Amino acid sequence: MRATNVFNDLVGRVADRGRNLMGTTAPRNMAQMCDTLLTGKGEATGLALARAIFDRYDGMGLADRHAFFTMLRDRFGVDRARTETVLKQWQDGDETKLRDLHTASEPRSQELIRRLNRAPGGTRRLVAMRHDLLQLMDDDRTLTPLDADFRHLFGSWFNRGFLELQRIDWHTPANVLEKIIRYEAVHEISGWDDLRRRVAAPDRRLYAFFHPALGDDPLIFVEVALTADIPGDIGGILAADRAMTDTAKAQTAVFYSISNCQAGLRGISFGNFLIKQVVEELGREWPNLTTFVTLSPVPGLRRWALAHRDELPKYLSDTVAAAEDGSRPVALSDLTAHYMLTSRHPRGGATDPVARFHLGNGARLERINRDADASANGQTASWGVMVNYLYDLDTIERNHEAYSTMGEIIAAPPVRRLLKTR
Amino acid sequence: MRATNVFNDLVGRVADRGRNLMGTTAPRNMAQMCDTLLTGKGEATGLALARAIFDRYDGMGLADRHAFFTMLRDRFGVDRARTETVLKQWQDGDETKLRDLHTASEPRSQELIRRLNRAPGGTRRLVAMRHDLLQLMDDDRTLTPLDADFRHLFGSWFNRGFLELQRIDWHTPANVLEKIIRYEAVHEISGWDDLRRRVAAPDRRLYAFFHPALGDDPLIFVEVALTADIPGDIGGILAADRAMTDTAKAQTAVFYSISNCQAGLRGISFGNFLIKQVVEELGREWPNLTTFVTLSPVPGLRRWALAHRDELPKYLSDTVAAAEDGSRPVALSDLTAHYMLTSRHPRGGATDPVARFHLGNGARLERINRDADASANGQTASWGVMVNYLYDLDTIERNHEAYSTMGEIIAAPPVRRLLKTR
Amino acid sequence: MRATNVFNDLVGRVADRGRNLMGTTAPRNMAQMCDTLLTGKGEATGLALARAIFDRYDGMGLADRHAFFTMLRDRFGVDRARTETVLKQWQDGDETKLRDLHTASEPRSQELIRRLNRAPGGTRRLVAMRHDLLQLMDDDRTLTPLDADFRHLFGSWFNRGFLELQRIDWHTPANVLEKIIRYEAVHEISGWDDLRRRVAAPDRRLYAFFHPALGDDPLIFVEVALTADIPGDIGGILAADRAMTDTAKAQTAVFYSISNCQAGLRGISFGNFLIKQVVEELGREWPNLTTFVTLSPVPGLRRWALAHRDELPKYLSDTVAAAEDGSRPVALSDLTAHYMLTSRHPRGGATDPVARFHLGNGARLERINRDADASANGQTASWGVMVNYLYDLDTIERNHEAYSTMGEIIAAPPVRRLLKTR
Amino acid sequence: MRATNVFNDLVGRVADRGRNLMGTTAPRNMAQMCDTLLTGKGEATGLALARAIFDRYDGMGLADRHAFFTMLRDRFGVDRARTETVLKQWQDGDETKLRDLHTASEPRSQELIRRLNRAPGGTRRLVAMRHDLLQLMDDDRTLTPLDADFRHLFGSWFNRGFLELQRIDWHTPANVLEKIIRYEAVHEISGWDDLRRRVAAPDRRLYAFFHPALGDDPLIFVEVALTADIPGDIGGILAADRAMTDTAKAQTAVFYSISNCQAGLRGISFGNFLIKQVVEELGREWPNLTTFVTLSPVPGLRRWALAHRDELPKYLSDTVAAAEDGSRPVALSDLTAHYMLTSRHPRGGATDPVARFHLGNGARLERINRDADASANGQTASWGVMVNYLYDLDTIERNHEAYSTMGEIIAAPPVRRLLKTR
Repeated sequence: MRATNVFNDLVGRVADRGRNLMGTTAPRNMAQMCDTLLTGKGEATGLALARAIFDRYDGMGLADRHAFFTMLRDRFGVDRARTETVLKQWQDGDETKLRDLHTASEPRSQELIRRLNRAPGGTRRLVAMRHDLLQLMDDDRTLTPLDADFRHLFGSWFNRGFLELQRIDWHTPANVLEKIIRYEAVHEISGWDDLRRRVAAPDRRLYAFFHPALGDDPLIFVEVALTADIPGDIGGILAADRAMTDTAKAQTAVFYSISNCQAGLRGISFGNFLIKQVVEELGREWPNLTTFVTLSPVPGLRRWALAHRDELPKYLSDTVAAAEDGSRPVALSDLTAHYMLTSRHPRGGATDPVARFHLGNGARLERINRDADASANGQTASWGVMVNYLYDLDTIERNHEAYSTMGEIIAAPPVRRLLKTR
Repeated sequence: MRATNVFNDLVGRVADRGRNLMGTTAPRNMAQMCDTLLTGKGEATGLALARAIFDRYDGMGLADRHAFFTMLRDRFGVDRARTETVLKQWQDGDETKLRDLHTASEPRSQELIRRLNRAPGGTRRLVAMRHDLLQLMDDDRTLTPLDADFRHLFGSWFNRGFLELQRIDWHTPANVLEKIIRYEAVHEISGWDDLRRRVAAPDRRLYAFFHPALGDDPLIFVEVALTADIPGDIGGILAADRAMTDTAKAQTAVFYSISNCQAGLRGISFGNFLIKQVVEELGREWPNLTTFVTLSPVPGLRRWALAHRDELPKYLSDTVAAAEDGSRPVALSDLTAHYMLTSRHPRGGATDPVARFHLGNGARLERINRDADASANGQTASWGVMVNYLYDLDTIERNHEAYSTMGEIIAAPPVRRLLKTR
Repeated sequence: MRATNVFNDLVGRVADRGRNLMGTTAPRNMAQMCDTLLTGKGEATGLALARAIFDRYDGMGLADRHAFFTMLRDRFGVDRARTETVLKQWQDGDETKLRDLHTASEPRSQELIRRLNRAPGGTRRLVAMRHDLLQLMDDDRTLTPLDADFRHLFGSWFNRGFLELQRIDWHTPANVLEKIIRYEAVHEISGWDDLRRRVAAPDRRLYAFFHPALGDDPLIFVEVALTADIPGDIGGILAADRAMTDTAKAQTAVFYSISNCQAGLRGISFGNFLIKQVVEELGREWPNLTTFVTLSPVPGLRRWALAHRDELPKYLSDTVAAAEDGSRPVALSDLTAHYMLTSRHPRGGATDPVARFHLGNGARLERINRDADASANGQTASWGVMVNYLYDLDTIERNHEAYSTMGEIIAAPPVRRLLKTR
Repeated sequence: MRATNVFNDLVGRVADRGRNLMGTTAPRNMAQMCDTLLTGKGEATGLALARAIFDRYDGMGLADRHAFFTMLRDRFGVDRARTETVLKQWQDGDETKLRDLHTASEPRSQELIRRLNRAPGGTRRLVAMRHDLLQLMDDDRTLTPLDADFRHLFGSWFNRGFLELQRIDWHTPANVLEKIIRYEAVHEISGWDDLRRRVAAPDRRLYAFFHPALGDDPLIFVEVALTADIPGDIGGILAADRAMTDTAKAQTAVFYSISNCQAGLRGISFGNFLIKQVVEELGREWPNLTTFVTLSPVPGLRRWALAHRDELPKYLSDTVAAAEDGSRPVALSDLTAHYMLTSRHPRGGATDPVARFHLGNGARLERINRDADASANGQTASWGVMVNYLYDLDTIERNHEAYSTMGEIIAAPPVRRLLKTR
């Protein structure tokens, strides 16, 4: 990492030199700068230009950034003339031109992004740029086509083959640990003592994916607890005064938190790969582990129940109604089973987003736990219910197949039986 | 690197597991396997399939590999139906579909290659695969469209932003040094003693670009000698018994050999970036360096002179004719200047391939050296002539511009004057 | 470090094997075990025995440890017979026996300690052992001769030539940083945020000495602040909301805290080497630094003033008397100057222990600062006075010479003048 | 290592500064310089002086070095007056002075060596110094007492607890591998290809001990071959075209070469520790290994047989006589057994030096191999005989005990039976 920095620094100086050269002919504005970067072929000017574009971007407020993205979308879209030329050749009967059509119709913004990436720290800066873009898209969906370019390139650059799994522990440099504290998105890490419990205790593990171009900034991480049995509540996992599990006897590994770290990489999926690789890693180190489960939130339960109250079986509808005073529904497990097993997302699959992720990975809904999350968050989202998804390497492929092709929600029999209670 | 290996190993085992799962339903042949990889979404099966495809490929002879590539080209080309659908929408007036046209017309082989890349060591295996493809293309140009997919993805993955410059010296692991010996393509390294002279002498340097996915296998390297003056012959640089240059007084850095290491990355250009970064690195370490030049072969001189003898000025035509007995032309410097400055490649730029590279980088043709290369190779190609190209950071941009837009060959006045001799 | 651990582990297993072998013939008690370790020559048994002795020691309470040390002192003292034999030979006229006398009279405990050191983690365990010994010596000075053996060997093993200077910063592993927090003995580090300010701010540095046998456990560290001028109070250095110093303009480096980390290495001196090496390191990185000073406590001032009140010049005696109500003496600077410049330790040199350290290193007493330390500690020890010692590489040797041979206290003229005030 | 170098460099500069300070008062000659180093307490001067002494030493020829060592021996011997004072106190009845006698009689050269060790690279330079001393001692045994000081301190500094085992393979830096080639003392490594076979083949290993103060310069290394059975000749181990052993099935690990690397550390023993640790390491990696043996030369056989011909049983005496024409003795195995089992060194133990080493470690003489070493060396020393010593962790302790206390040569029954043949 150090060596990289030295040379990034050097590249920086190449860029500086280029910038000086650029002095007199420097483009007046970002649009011109981008034009030059895209059409020019000089490397010194190229790196300098890329860096100058990033620097100018960093100095902008959000409104200017919005204008910048709009400009990129409009000015660096598909080369229509070139596309039409190739199209005509193809339609005139030259079959070889079908492939050329793809090349000809590549939005020019893609090559622009590739050239920006050459600058020192380019990847990192592009990820930050897309973070802004995603935020702006909340109000302006017309930027979606531009985002598609970022997403396409990031998907290629952050290919699983380029990721490195690393264990995070108490020997990890503090600057990385500090990021873990900041990035934890599910069960907040309250400080260094809490962190120490999660990474340094013998019955706890934390693994992260890194990408060479982002250095020591992780992409995603998962926190693991070794336990005797499948746990039914998160409080017992996180408590400072919990009993330590004897790892030599532990049979269960619990993935109790998965956090994506890079907002600018939204939609580029790593979690599936991460979990499965960690399952392998743990199994290698402790061959006595037999069970790999999550302890997961059910973020959509309460909102769904209230929205669909009238469509529920009467006893569930009643239980939801009775809970309108803020109390917990009585038949909460049945209600959860109903939500997980019967409701469907408009685009297919389970309604619950966390369920979609794990079921899509081939995991099985293993258990529903009441009183599992006493936090305000947990109460608000799901009246404190959490669930376990089971990762069984021998069945994930079959499960995945059944889920993705037939839409079947794979669940353990006891969960299934909750559906038939009345 | 070690950590990566451990986890590659793990991924290997995930893949093994996937392969076992695959057992009963394993596709009968490569086409089916590729179909499944491309359409399936399961990760365990995915990695296993990718690996199985590579393994099966490795077991094939060249004829089968040819058939495999032909199959890829034909079966995983552009999705014509999807393209036509989008095309129609666009032609029906939906302007937003212009960008979709690009996505729709992406050859399916591109996504297939991306999925192959996820396997352990995938990038390395894809580079090896393309190496075969390039060789087969010598006799079968119909594979060119498939190669365009490899080239496009490699260009994106081996973006300069992902490369790391490293110095190679006598503290470098032997397995890397062994590769340097093997990859040196210009001035053969005769063994470990010769290598030691090139990397361990105080007045010698060797720098290489690496890519994280290829581990300790370099992409390209450049060899540098520090000298008092611009050297006129390669023998003096390589001699085992040469005098050492006092690096505190050296004013000149000579790039006397540049070797690309990965045949499978042909056409993905790194040399330009490498030279400029090394110029910066050297300038930082030895601020007294004022001159950065190459000592380069002129591989096309003799062939060109013989082929164009009749079009030359008479005294040059005579000198070439006189040399038909195997002797060297008398007016060799004039002849070289004529070749470099007046001849043009059909696609523009200089005729000589090495000249095209350096002039395209913005270097200047600085000097013509007779009796510069006593090797059989050097005699055969250019009657022993070598030239120096000068890299001056303050003018490379202007030179590059003049060369690439106007086709102007930038040369030092003394070289220019050779043209006017008679 | 990792590699070392692997092999420590292996050695551990060799030791285990040895222990098994030992099974039937294992010495009944520690004295016998030590006898066997010292006389036996078997390596497997040797490592196992050494480890067994350490393990048994770890299981003991303080009283048993006291008995253990007493046993070592009495049973593994000098071999009197051997000494007398050699002595007689020498006194009989064999001059060559004078050197043998040294060998013959070596306390057997020294070789015993050397053999204990061979065990995995031996050095670390011996350092812990001496820590106990030093504590027991508070009440039992008869153990001093045994401690002389530890001290002699530690002095040899922790020779400056074996120490490694390392910078501690925010990229340092958390387990090392945690030790820094724990070991800071002068100005307590209140937590990770405070630590971060001391190691990660651009105008702060922390350097430590490490020894290979103690791994990542530091021996001593020094904290440095870069400032514009010589600082007059510690609060300004430590404040969370202090202004940052522009390091490009800083002219002063302030050593504001030096902490020894290993209680078991008391009396083995590293501070002198550390400060001077850090001065060089800082000077190399920031050539604009011109001044290297400490900001140091005066721990003995108040006690001395109260004890020697009657011997002071009247105006100082009065000022001390007036301060008996808890207020600060009026003429506090004069009083401090008097303490530093005129009082002498019974064994020579300055009375103040911190002064003895810095003056002995060749530093000069540069300035006396009132209101420099608002902490309860600082008030109690010195009514809040702190002083600066100046490290000037061009004069430290001369200063050191004058101090150590003539007992001269080197002080800046303004400090000297305080003596002459009345 | 890099970090160490940086700081060595710094220390170097502290030393430079000290040297400048020293300018005017620099001692005229080495004796004075050593006096000053020993008595002075200044650190800057101390490092500078130490370095100056080393530098001046390096500039000397062998005769001056001899004079230097003589001076050290005579001028920095035991402080006789101090010794006599303490001696008198002890003889006058102060028992506590017995321990002080040891301290008082320490040759002053020991503390001098310790202070030299503080200089940058001090340990390395002291080891080189002792190398010279050992060579001079060949002709001048009066230097022995001085060597005792070096030996004593080196024994303490190179304590097994400070050594690090490392595997040497093809990923090892070339500068280390180059040293291995140079240091191999038993079976010469003919170049990089030969080295590659010994470190990079799957069925070959090479392990070395390193000491932190010597950086990447090894102390000792052992070469290992994995084989199916106990090998009977070295040619089969070293052959370039040998068949590879399937390591998954190998049952035997053969230590076929052990080389000490540092002539200046002669007499400081590491081999015993190295072999046993490597046995453990190999056993951990390949649990199927059951047999750990050497393939060792018998360097003293031929000389011994010729010298003791007349004392041998007649058939052996005859066989030796018959071999005087240069042919090999007929009953060579019997003769070897007789040599190994019956002859004794004047100071006890086996006569053969290699046998003394392995038997002293607790190994067992396992087999005698005729036609085992076709090299000129092997023929000259032992008519080509080599032997295997077996390291069995379960019996080495007992073997060692029997050998070292009873002088019993432990040998396998078939070897023993050779004694009884006639």
